[in-house]
Amino acid sequence: MKESVGISPFMYPCPVVAVGTYNAEGKPNLMTVAWTGVVNGNPASISISVRKETYSYKNLMEKKAFTVNIPSRQYIKEIDFIGKTSGRNTDKFKETGLTAVRSKIVDAPYIEEFPVTIECSVLKAEDLGLHTIFIGRIMDVKVCSDCLDEAHMPVTEKISPIAFIPGDGSYYVLGERLEPGKDK
Amino acid sequence: MKESVGISPFMYPCPVVAVGTYNAEGKPNLMTVAWTGVVNGNPASISISVRKETYSYKNLMEKKAFTVNIPSRQYIKEIDFIGKTSGRNTDKFKETGLTAVRSKIVDAPYIEEFPVTIECSVLKAEDLGLHTIFIGRIMDVKVCSDCLDEAHMPVTEKISPIAFIPGDGSYYVLGERLEPGKDK
Repeated sequence: MKESVGISPFMYPCPVVAVGTYNAEGKPNLMTVAWTGVVNGNPASISISVRKETYSYKNLMEKKAFTVNIPSRQYIKEIDFIGKTSGRNTDKFKETGLTAVRSKIVDAPYIEEFPVTIECSVLKAEDLGLHTIFIGRIMDVKVCSDCLDEAHMPVTEKISPIAFIPGDGSYYVLGERLEPGKDK
Repeated sequence: MKESVGISPFMYPCPVVAVGTYNAEGKPNLMTVAWTGVVNGNPASISISVRKETYSYKNLMEKKAFTVNIPSRQYIKEIDFIGKTSGRNTDKFKETGLTAVRSKIVDAPYIEEFPVTIECSVLKAEDLGLHTIFIGRIMDVKVCSDCLDEAHMPVTEKISPIAFIPGDGSYYVLGERLEPGKDK
């Protein structure tokens, strides 16, 4: 038996990522986003949804570029901090000690320390209400050398990504890998 | 040091859900979707991205409604099967033994057995290339009674959702819960 729990933005699980942008003066900023995901296979694209009031919104509209930086579990404090502060009054790179690297492909900074970076060019922005959805065409994906196997493929267990649950704002690591052919 | 792994749709992790739709004759269908996520807080909305060639695409365009059904780990076989078959030649409810329930809120069926159902009305559909993104306004969220706590809030450990990794098509359960204030 199912019961209504009312209307709110549920999904199990969400990713949780740090979005990197530059402001008009080229100062790098970071924003934590869980309203993100793949939206298209070709051209390969992801979306991020951002409130108009945020500092990053203006950067996104001006630069039409962003990076998505996927944290490993060791950066749980940093991703939580980046989500609870604003670039208006906080230099998030300085406060976290994370290193901003200028992308050679899009006009946005990425985080050196996080294991995966997706560099995106904004294809379109659409106002949905509280949030604006930015569709970002993937221009490149970069992965830390330590997280690649011998075939140059990313290894999920080495990336050790974090899952986010919107309902109670909790974070989880990934657990056991399921084998559909075996597991029940 | 980061290395390029080329352009493809990466995200760590994605959700993986079964989307329920009716065809013109009212026959229920299911489709597995990992290109999904929250896109707006108000009106609370999620997106699903679907290829035009799929059976569900036609249903979505005609009915302008869908449900998102979140599997628990015990349904890994079913979610994998639903993703590898087409409603054109397979009755996925019959083959999996899952129960189709007619939503009272939107013109779409949901899965009785999966722990969470999100009932959605299509606000807009936009062709992005290979995939079309459907923005669904959340009309209700339903959770199995067994997965609610005494305050009527969903309990993630009881829902036991599945995470999907696009790079290698692998599935994971959630593991340890992280506490940003404590964990490092």
